[in-house]
Amino acid sequence: MANSSSGESVIRRVVRLVGAFDDSHRTMSVAALARRSGLPPSTTYRLVDELLAEGLLEREPHSEVRIGTRLWELVSRSSRMVGLREAALPFMEDVQSVVQHSTTLGILDSDEVLYIERLGSRDSMVDITKVAGRLPIHGTSSGLVLLAYSSAPYQDRFLARRLEKFTDATLTDPDELRRHLAGIRSQGFASMPGLIVPGSSGIAVPVFGRTNSVVAALSVVVPRNEENAAARVPVLMTAARGISRSLGWRGELKGALRQSNGNF
Amino acid sequence: MANSSSGESVIRRVVRLVGAFDDSHRTMSVAALARRSGLPPSTTYRLVDELLAEGLLEREPHSEVRIGTRLWELVSRSSRMVGLREAALPFMEDVQSVVQHSTTLGILDSDEVLYIERLGSRDSMVDITKVAGRLPIHGTSSGLVLLAYSSAPYQDRFLARRLEKFTDATLTDPDELRRHLAGIRSQGFASMPGLIVPGSSGIAVPVFGRTNSVVAALSVVVPRNEENAAARVPVLMTAARGISRSLGWRGELKGALRQSNGNF
Repeated sequence: MANSSSGESVIRRVVRLVGAFDDSHRTMSVAALARRSGLPPSTTYRLVDELLAEGLLEREPHSEVRIGTRLWELVSRSSRMVGLREAALPFMEDVQSVVQHSTTLGILDSDEVLYIERLGSRDSMVDITKVAGRLPIHGTSSGLVLLAYSSAPYQDRFLARRLEKFTDATLTDPDELRRHLAGIRSQGFASMPGLIVPGSSGIAVPVFGRTNSVVAALSVVVPRNEENAAARVPVLMTAARGISRSLGWRGELKGALRQSNGNF
Repeated sequence: MANSSSGESVIRRVVRLVGAFDDSHRTMSVAALARRSGLPPSTTYRLVDELLAEGLLEREPHSEVRIGTRLWELVSRSSRMVGLREAALPFMEDVQSVVQHSTTLGILDSDEVLYIERLGSRDSMVDITKVAGRLPIHGTSSGLVLLAYSSAPYQDRFLARRLEKFTDATLTDPDELRRHLAGIRSQGFASMPGLIVPGSSGIAVPVFGRTNSVVAALSVVVPRNEENAAARVPVLMTAARGISRSLGWRGELKGALRQSNGNF
């Protein structure tokens, strides 16, 4: 009933339309939307009319369209991301005001780091993260923290891939990465220079959820050779504990957030 | 083709499903989702399966479902809200660190104030705003600023309604409100005690967009009788100018952000 002659459902086609927008294409003509989504113009015009009627798209001047306020509101008031972000934001503000460099919160999603929040200096030159942006797991300190605390089968699957080398510092050898992940678990943080951008370093710590599993990584991005991890790691760890507690973590300190050589 | 026997489109039904989630219903069983959305259980199960397959919903333990990461990501990377919020966030952090009270950014949407960002103390007792939450226009300083700078026909239409009186301080008389709005335009800010919550006051200033129209209100929420507007208004105005410039405002100071008796 809901399928087109191509067998594609309305929902799938709407996802293609909404997915055609991104941060460099925030408004588009309907013709451009048809091109970028790969849907026939007639289908695009019909669906756009329906989406406009529901407020999921909105019309701009010059008959361009954009993602509607209603769609943002529907998703923002109920998404898990929003709960995580709300728990984290006050603590991220504290980190940001102490460390004075970009502070990010990332989760593991579809084998990448998805950044769900970022507080940053207005003109940070060393930080390529952005909200709702993605970066490779092995190219970021946040990704390595999330990988270090993920399940053994997941790690095996991830390390079986061929990994791209972005800079001289990117680790791509599975054995070397495994040793590195063990080090992250035993220290409770990752501090990695220039894995993806030579001039910047990330320092990241895990954030725990109610069930004591790692749900996110809290990180600061600083210029390379100005890491000062000895001063910054305790700040991050303190904030990560606060976020974790807000999320219902009971604070069973099995070496998780202190520096130790514990098993997890 | 895409319509059910009730004549309701797939898109409309998906909106009903997604709209059934809110911040006190972030996860639900499919049965509960059918009840809250008012859709027949069979339709709900079928659409939920499709939404799960696209990642727009995700399955929780105990077979509950929630809004999916993919949906959040699709909307967050391209919504106008995100552009506005990204422009505003660094300046909001500055306000927050100076004023040490909740700082919000609100827009006018469907005759209400829709809050698109909020930075706040972890235990602010006086602030009922939340991200993606709505409050009445005449019940908030942000709403009065947005109304003061909106078009004359819009103001006329809004003031023709019967307005609810939330506290002794809420203005509901159209003539009194008109005088008040003129005062806001001439001063460049609103500072209103307890319009909706007796114990709290809001101070709000306009944020301008590229075309010199007001696109948002920047506000702090403070305990009543601790307004200290003389100190806080300049902080808010400075930050609002920064946000406005980030949004492409050319800074034509027609009395807009300075205190003046100019016409707008």
